[in-house]
Amino acid sequence: MNSFGRIFRVNIFGESHGESVGVNIDGCPAGLPLIVNDFSEDIERRKGGTQKGTTPRKEDDIPLFKSGIYRDLTTGAPITILFENNNTRSSDYEKLRAVPRPGHADFVASKKFAGFEDYRGGGHFSGRLTVALVAAGVIAKKILGNFSENGNGITVKAFITEIGGEPDAEKGLQKAIDQKDSIGGIVECRVSGLPIGLGEPFFDSVESVVSHAVFAIPAVRGIEFGTGFAAAKMFGLEHNDAIEDETGRTRTNHAGGIVGGITNGNELVFRIAIKPTSSTPKEQQTFSYESNAVETFSVKGRHDLCIALRVPVVLEAVTAIVLADLMLLEQRVKRTWKS
Amino acid sequence: MNSFGRIFRVNIFGESHGESVGVNIDGCPAGLPLIVNDFSEDIERRKGGTQKGTTPRKEDDIPLFKSGIYRDLTTGAPITILFENNNTRSSDYEKLRAVPRPGHADFVASKKFAGFEDYRGGGHFSGRLTVALVAAGVIAKKILGNFSENGNGITVKAFITEIGGEPDAEKGLQKAIDQKDSIGGIVECRVSGLPIGLGEPFFDSVESVVSHAVFAIPAVRGIEFGTGFAAAKMFGLEHNDAIEDETGRTRTNHAGGIVGGITNGNELVFRIAIKPTSSTPKEQQTFSYESNAVETFSVKGRHDLCIALRVPVVLEAVTAIVLADLMLLEQRVKRTWKS
Amino acid sequence: MNSFGRIFRVNIFGESHGESVGVNIDGCPAGLPLIVNDFSEDIERRKGGTQKGTTPRKEDDIPLFKSGIYRDLTTGAPITILFENNNTRSSDYEKLRAVPRPGHADFVASKKFAGFEDYRGGGHFSGRLTVALVAAGVIAKKILGNFSENGNGITVKAFITEIGGEPDAEKGLQKAIDQKDSIGGIVECRVSGLPIGLGEPFFDSVESVVSHAVFAIPAVRGIEFGTGFAAAKMFGLEHNDAIEDETGRTRTNHAGGIVGGITNGNELVFRIAIKPTSSTPKEQQTFSYESNAVETFSVKGRHDLCIALRVPVVLEAVTAIVLADLMLLEQRVKRTWKS
Amino acid sequence: MNSFGRIFRVNIFGESHGESVGVNIDGCPAGLPLIVNDFSEDIERRKGGTQKGTTPRKEDDIPLFKSGIYRDLTTGAPITILFENNNTRSSDYEKLRAVPRPGHADFVASKKFAGFEDYRGGGHFSGRLTVALVAAGVIAKKILGNFSENGNGITVKAFITEIGGEPDAEKGLQKAIDQKDSIGGIVECRVSGLPIGLGEPFFDSVESVVSHAVFAIPAVRGIEFGTGFAAAKMFGLEHNDAIEDETGRTRTNHAGGIVGGITNGNELVFRIAIKPTSSTPKEQQTFSYESNAVETFSVKGRHDLCIALRVPVVLEAVTAIVLADLMLLEQRVKRTWKS
Repeated sequence: MNSFGRIFRVNIFGESHGESVGVNIDGCPAGLPLIVNDFSEDIERRKGGTQKGTTPRKEDDIPLFKSGIYRDLTTGAPITILFENNNTRSSDYEKLRAVPRPGHADFVASKKFAGFEDYRGGGHFSGRLTVALVAAGVIAKKILGNFSENGNGITVKAFITEIGGEPDAEKGLQKAIDQKDSIGGIVECRVSGLPIGLGEPFFDSVESVVSHAVFAIPAVRGIEFGTGFAAAKMFGLEHNDAIEDETGRTRTNHAGGIVGGITNGNELVFRIAIKPTSSTPKEQQTFSYESNAVETFSVKGRHDLCIALRVPVVLEAVTAIVLADLMLLEQRVKRTWKS
Repeated sequence: MNSFGRIFRVNIFGESHGESVGVNIDGCPAGLPLIVNDFSEDIERRKGGTQKGTTPRKEDDIPLFKSGIYRDLTTGAPITILFENNNTRSSDYEKLRAVPRPGHADFVASKKFAGFEDYRGGGHFSGRLTVALVAAGVIAKKILGNFSENGNGITVKAFITEIGGEPDAEKGLQKAIDQKDSIGGIVECRVSGLPIGLGEPFFDSVESVVSHAVFAIPAVRGIEFGTGFAAAKMFGLEHNDAIEDETGRTRTNHAGGIVGGITNGNELVFRIAIKPTSSTPKEQQTFSYESNAVETFSVKGRHDLCIALRVPVVLEAVTAIVLADLMLLEQRVKRTWKS
Repeated sequence: MNSFGRIFRVNIFGESHGESVGVNIDGCPAGLPLIVNDFSEDIERRKGGTQKGTTPRKEDDIPLFKSGIYRDLTTGAPITILFENNNTRSSDYEKLRAVPRPGHADFVASKKFAGFEDYRGGGHFSGRLTVALVAAGVIAKKILGNFSENGNGITVKAFITEIGGEPDAEKGLQKAIDQKDSIGGIVECRVSGLPIGLGEPFFDSVESVVSHAVFAIPAVRGIEFGTGFAAAKMFGLEHNDAIEDETGRTRTNHAGGIVGGITNGNELVFRIAIKPTSSTPKEQQTFSYESNAVETFSVKGRHDLCIALRVPVVLEAVTAIVLADLMLLEQRVKRTWKS
Repeated sequence: MNSFGRIFRVNIFGESHGESVGVNIDGCPAGLPLIVNDFSEDIERRKGGTQKGTTPRKEDDIPLFKSGIYRDLTTGAPITILFENNNTRSSDYEKLRAVPRPGHADFVASKKFAGFEDYRGGGHFSGRLTVALVAAGVIAKKILGNFSENGNGITVKAFITEIGGEPDAEKGLQKAIDQKDSIGGIVECRVSGLPIGLGEPFFDSVESVVSHAVFAIPAVRGIEFGTGFAAAKMFGLEHNDAIEDETGRTRTNHAGGIVGGITNGNELVFRIAIKPTSSTPKEQQTFSYESNAVETFSVKGRHDLCIALRVPVVLEAVTAIVLADLMLLEQRVKRTWKS
């Protein structure tokens, strides 16, 4: 299932070292202005720039519009956007086939797809696919920006709060560089401007659909809303958010903007835990199909020391996709714009 | 959306103080033995027994089979099970309408459903609905028990690991009793016997579907798989689980049994954070529609001091529902049993 | 899959001779007035009254509200309605197990469900289940009636156009009585008041979703929209409906109100073919598992000579379910009513 | 909703005169051999060859594999196939914008998508999109061919049975040529080798899902299974198919291979009615936005006199898509092939 959404339906496809990666979106409102430049900023953010600890593989990542856009406006028909893979070095991976890398999908993919999977660079399981998520996110953010009830649109912002346990990301990353090992981190997402009433009881709670989509991001190991795991140590009086007026504004926001699975009009707040990049520069051990024994090996290829650094824009994208879908479903933004 | 599942589709319905709560299941395999007694143990566990800190409201909770079962066997047609509500005291709630309780869905429900919601005892948002989840879970566990590749079936076990920060649940609960306040806790779930290969890349990762369903349980504020949030502080070499043989057995299990969104054959491990019961015995403040100002009030009705204590059987149920659906989808258990 | 709909989701359940049949509806707007009496007329129509040729089995068919309704209004939570089966005579069917009745689901059901199906009176495959469809249809019609853009609501009307080839239904039925055999018929459905723009290109064309739902009605063998099969013999100039004004009104209505899969604002018109009741009073031949040979036998039990006579109200119901779902999806009726 | 399927999920996209048309397929089994040549025959059939009465617009229609295929085998990841549009003459359509063509989606599309639709050549509503269906059909047929229980695979064949009322297609077409008008026709589809038990009661009856998908084909106005509309004139004894042996083989096949919505192991037989091509060479009348009055006009562009002639391969494709999905869902073909 490489798709998500009930109204704004996102399908992602492609492989790390295949022809291309891309996204197909069905259900996007007609009349939304959309040009190549709209994607530049988020795609650039995803690349990780010149930041220390990010992969030296660089792709141009120009979005190629294949359907659904006419005269710089969405048409209401399915949108297809391709990103070509140009900068691949598959030979890095050929020899590794016999050695399923720990932390990667190599082993499970070969079992699940009976050896037919495109294994080069993680194939379809690669973080490369997140460029497709980011592209869908650009469109979703535009939809959210059109929400007019509050006068300001809905804004989705994600940022690093911790790398390797350090609130100062650069300090956490330096630990990894010093240790010559990869490292994990925590990313927080905050959404302002949401109306009251998104989400449905039980299986379509906002937490359900947000977490569903967020765990599509590779390397996410946990998610918590509001005070999250800290709530497990709290007393009720401490945790409850007193409602202060008829708009539902609460004195505190331990709930992170969701009560009973439904948005309550306060800021939506959640955090995700990102594991250390599986492709550590360190020597590791794993089973080898060739020798039929555990072997010591080193991962080759180009990798990030701390994948968490590139997650914020992807988390924004995925969150925006979920919320655009809910907003369209709940009829809070238009399905067709008048120009 | 009160439904979940692609093959084993669970629909829950009902209200805390309405006529009944219940569950409708479409897609259950035919030929599964099912009698009223099969439900007794889990339904009893959900009640919380005579444990300190659990609500004094007690229902008989006899499952009434309304469809889909014939001669003590499932027929392949939709199964409907009702639980009648007998022991309701709605007058407790009538006067509270003007005062939306903090932490409860009162405020958002009245906005979302324009005041038409059945507000008595939380109505459809009530924890009472979890009896329907538990009933579906009993059936799901039976399906999982029939998985024969590993010779032993799949077992789902959940248990309290912490109440109010104390590994000793009784001690944590005592803090709440002493404080005359409600308290939160952590519940862990472990699933053994799973085959390799459940889950699909990206939007139907095992984490995605498990978290989707788990957040249907009221009061859950976070979920983490394997080492979870602790992974954010770890180095790659530390976190990676070395594969030890061709079955995919790993030396450690920091991944909690899932890599690339797919089960890897090791134990599935995850934890959830439960907030303190919103209905604390303490006086609280909240906005009153009557006085149009913030007021001090006390929640009436019968409530648990620590709702986490009743969560394990519900978490087992929801997890079993997800996994039964995946196992049926992936063709790992039969859709029709031969007797 | 006993469910239908994207927003207004209908799940039907039950068996002919089981405990009950019923319907669970998720996604019904809150605030819709709903009392037992609302169902009387359509449930009575479905019974076929004292009309010649309808089954002598009579059920009271009082709808029992089990969830989702409070103080005679829908609450926005799932609605569950049960109909008890009181008037069953299962002994009629016990002896027939070895002899799968031609035209009935007996043979396929025993294969598909490995013999575990409730075979009494056709079990879950029985036309008895249509009472659940009719109940859902009553609610759907109410939703459609609230469409206010055209000032009049949307009305769905179905009626017999032909029995046994005779435009005069009584004459056609008399042929069956004279012949001592069952007989087929044609039912037409007309919907007025629809807005322009329902349906989506390709897989969710209005024809796609209407036909999907209509073939859920037992005994339907074909469906045609507008001029339907006659269009295959026509020239283009003859068939094309000239648009006459900016509202999209057409001079003729050969398209039956749908162009490109989308409603065009003209009357929606379609017809369905109903096969003769499979349970004919005549002697028939079929394979017997007992003798392992083809045998001559007679169907026992109480049956309609012409099931088509009872179809109009069911066709209205199913059509209303489809259109209510589309109208809610397309945001043309409110998801929550203000009282 | 430009998607179809529960396991084998087909998404089509593109516009007649846009950049490209294409298909994205999620859930295709891994290990299926797939090369460009596999598509040639069906794509050629769709073009209508040099047959009289087919459009002079010709595209090369080379399938471009963008994802999901590696070393000539499917990988289990989503498959994306593009067809470029090279041979477009958009100026034909520019001037027609003010004049919505009768029988075409022009009018409804402009209303539904608020004028933002790509109107050139019918845009997303164009029959051009059927090349995407045909491509998906090629893959679906391959899956069906691997069904091994019956030793022969499942074969899907569609053919013209009538053009303009004439069983001899050439004769029917000649009527259109003589009349200088377009004309309709009937196409029949026969599927052999199906196992017993596909389909589910009520809303996922085989008729339901087949008709749902078939009405995605432009110009289809009706569908009938087995004897179809003729059944409405028959007596029960005549229509019932006597079961002859324990395999479920029936003496006759009036049911067209489906009873109770479930396949019974006999040949699946159904017919569809195709309306005359809306773009007739004749002068027509329609409302003009420009003059705000009904005008006489002629359709320009390149069109088929009888679109029915090109439907058989599209009907095969759509039918194969439905059946591949059901076969995968019902676990009757493997989801992963061993090489």
